[in-house]
This record gives sequence, C-alpha cells and structure tokens, in this order.
Amino acid sequence: MHVHVAFTPDELAAAPTGVVIDVIRATSTICQALAAGYERVLCAAEVEDARALSGLGGVTLGGERLGLRIEGFDLGNSPREYLSVRTPTLAMSTTNGTRAIVTAAERCERVVIASLLNLAAVIEAARDHGDDVAIFCAGVKGSFALDDSYVAGRIVAELGDDRSDAAEAAARLAASYPTALEAFRASRSGRNLINHGSELEADIPYCARESVLDVVPRLTGMQGVAAEIRA
Amino acid sequence: MHVHVAFTPDELAAAPTGVVIDVIRATSTICQALAAGYERVLCAAEVEDARALSGLGGVTLGGERLGLRIEGFDLGNSPREYLSVRTPTLAMSTTNGTRAIVTAAERCERVVIASLLNLAAVIEAARDHGDDVAIFCAGVKGSFALDDSYVAGRIVAELGDDRSDAAEAAARLAASYPTALEAFRASRSGRNLINHGSELEADIPYCARESVLDVVPRLTGMQGVAAEIRA
Repeated sequence: MHVHVAFTPDELAAAPTGVVIDVIRATSTICQALAAGYERVLCAAEVEDARALSGLGGVTLGGERLGLRIEGFDLGNSPREYLSVRTPTLAMSTTNGTRAIVTAAERCERVVIASLLNLAAVIEAARDHGDDVAIFCAGVKGSFALDDSYVAGRIVAELGDDRSDAAEAAARLAASYPTALEAFRASRSGRNLINHGSELEADIPYCARESVLDVVPRLTGMQGVAAEIRA
Repeated sequence: MHVHVAFTPDELAAAPTGVVIDVIRATSTICQALAAGYERVLCAAEVEDARALSGLGGVTLGGERLGLRIEGFDLGNSPREYLSVRTPTLAMSTTNGTRAIVTAAERCERVVIASLLNLAAVIEAARDHGDDVAIFCAGVKGSFALDDSYVAGRIVAELGDDRSDAAEAAARLAASYPTALEAFRASRSGRNLINHGSELEADIPYCARESVLDVVPRLTGMQGVAAEIRA
C-alpha cells in the first residue's frame, strides 16, 4: 500500500483510508473518551457550534481555547478528564482537529482517528483495510506540528516502504527521537502545555503512552457542522 | 534569529528574509546561470509567459516540462547547460519554483535563492542580514519534496536553535541522510530524473555538490508576471 502524509490540512492528499492526528490533545482525548465508554464524540470547530449540540440532551461539553477549559463547558481538553463516562455523547470544540477530520472526510472513503494511545490498533486497522493510506496531521493553525508529524512517522514506519516524500520524511523524523515524550516536549503544542504549568504539562506523558487503548475511532458522518465519531 | 520552514507554498510563512529552494532543478540552474555570467534570470510559471519575454531581445529561453526541454526553447532545465553565457538575460519557465518565489516575495522584505551549489553563500547572507528567516520549499505540485526539505534542513542547521517545529523537523531530516546525493536520489524529483535516463540522472550529483558557487541570487522585482533575479 502507498502511504502519504499531509503535514498540514491545506495540502492536497487523498486515499481510501484517511488517518487523522491531533495528538496534543484532541485525538488523544477522543480515543480516551470512546475507550472509557462514551458512545460518540461530536467534533465542532467553533465553540458556539459545540455549545448548540448540548441541546440534543445527554451531552457533555468539552474543549479548550488557548489550553484552558471554555467558559460554561463541563470539561477541558485533557484526556485525563475522560476516564469515566458522564453522558452518552461528548461534544467537543477543537479547531485544528475538526478541520483535519473534515478535510480527510472530503478526500477518503473512511477516516480513522489516531493518537499514540491507540497506535497499534490504528496500524492494524489500516493493514486490515489494505488500501492506500493518507495521514492528515492537524497541525497548529495551518502550520506543521512536530508532535502530529512524529505520530504520523510512527504509523508510516509500520506500513511498508511504498512512501511519498512526506511519508519518508515523517518516518525519519520519528526515528530521530529516542522517545515520543522527547518529541512531544520539543513541539510547539507541548511547550504551550508546559508554559501553562504542571497540571497541563502532565498531559504530555499521558499522551506519549503507546498502544494502551484498543480502540479505533471512526468518522461515521456529519451532524450539521460537527463530525460524528464512534469506536 | 528565528528560523521557519514552509514545506509547501500554501503554508503561511513570513519573515524579513525569505529563502526559496527548488533544488532539483530550478534554483540550482538559476545559481549556475548567474555564476556563469548571465546578468539576470526572469522566472515565469507559464511557458507562454516565458516565450513572450524573448521579445525583449538578448534573451535565452530555458525550461522544462516533465523533465524535457520545451519545444522551441533554446535550453532545458539542466544546470549543466548554463556553464557559459549566451545572452544577457535568461528567461525560464519553471512552475514550482516561480510559485515559491512569488509567494516569498509577498511575505518577505528580501528574497534570496538557494541550492546546495551556493549553500555557504546563502547562509552567510542570512547571517549578515541578521533578521528572522522563512525558508520556502517549492515542493512538487504543492506537495512536500524531500530534496527541497533536505536543503532547508541544511540551512536551518547553520542558523541557530530558535526554530519553528518545521525548521526543527527539516534539520533532523537532513541529518538523517549521510549525503545530499542519497537524499536527492530518494526524492520524487530525483527519481523522476533517474526514470528519464542517464543524461538527466547526471544532474543529481551535479546539484548535490555543496558550496561550489559564491553567488547569492536575489529577487529584484517583478517584470510583469515574471520574477527578476540578479546576483
């Protein structure tokens, strides 16, 4: 199978299987929430769109702006807040992640959500489909993100040698770090958490744990402007 | 100084000093032509725009489509065709390179043209300016290109540790290859030349020579839709 990586959502990329990564922290949180038992996650880019989803009933509101919980929301964007289930539905506002998911949905037959937490499960799912793979890094405000690209490289490394230039570069980038933790701490997203203090900094080692969740979140459709994701 | 790399022309990037790379082969050819004594190079994206420039008089027409010399043009896009001067002006049609140069011009106070051939000269020029640097990789049809990103990483490695995520990734990518030749041969642009046969393949080691030209091509303005570059 051919494997390609789009380092930013603006890049053209298409394949039957799309993999979306926003590892610090949206896709780590989505994996954790679904593994904990939420039935579905609805991802909206805008705060007001997420807030409006609470009208559906049985909805927990989660998300962040500038690293902090949004006013009036139940929870922030730390995966450690999603270890137990509060309601059937989690509605999240996540700008970069939602954009990458919607971009992938337009260009792929199926879209799966990846983090390090479910690394092995995502690789197995991609192999089972057997089709070409395009990995979409959410990035930060349209720019290249080291943390997402690291995870992309880890996936590429397990999916064979038929790689685009970007996939080869991602694999080499990932191999240049001795641990995920080191890559995440060096990334802009990681440094933002560190600058917010020890409570948010603790999310970095949490997100850097590998293959601890046997879950493959999949995009099941759009609910208005929100992407619906289920395990 | 802060250093950033835009792996594709669509990425947002801005800095006082812009550096443009389309190493296989447009910017290598521009460096070679100016070092040989051409007074200026006019880069146009479209073939017809380059052809129209021949009306200026004293113009050599150069460029390629799919690796081959354009019909009616004097020369192709091999830097080895530009070892001696034919006319004061070289008008080139180069799609990816022109796009990257024009993008950089919109976002930077000054734009310099880089290849491996003039690596040391470009690094020295960036240091002399002392301002923040944005490196623009031309890529291939809007996608990430391994060869351009390799050269970007080589420049980043010499410009200090204040790096964006993308700059850090480029430096690590470059460091993962023992030689430029290996990186260029592995790239899509390099493989395209290899697939065209030994005559074009010979451009790869030619472009992989480091710091052999003491020239810093600079964007001096636009001539209609063409970017004017002088040493």
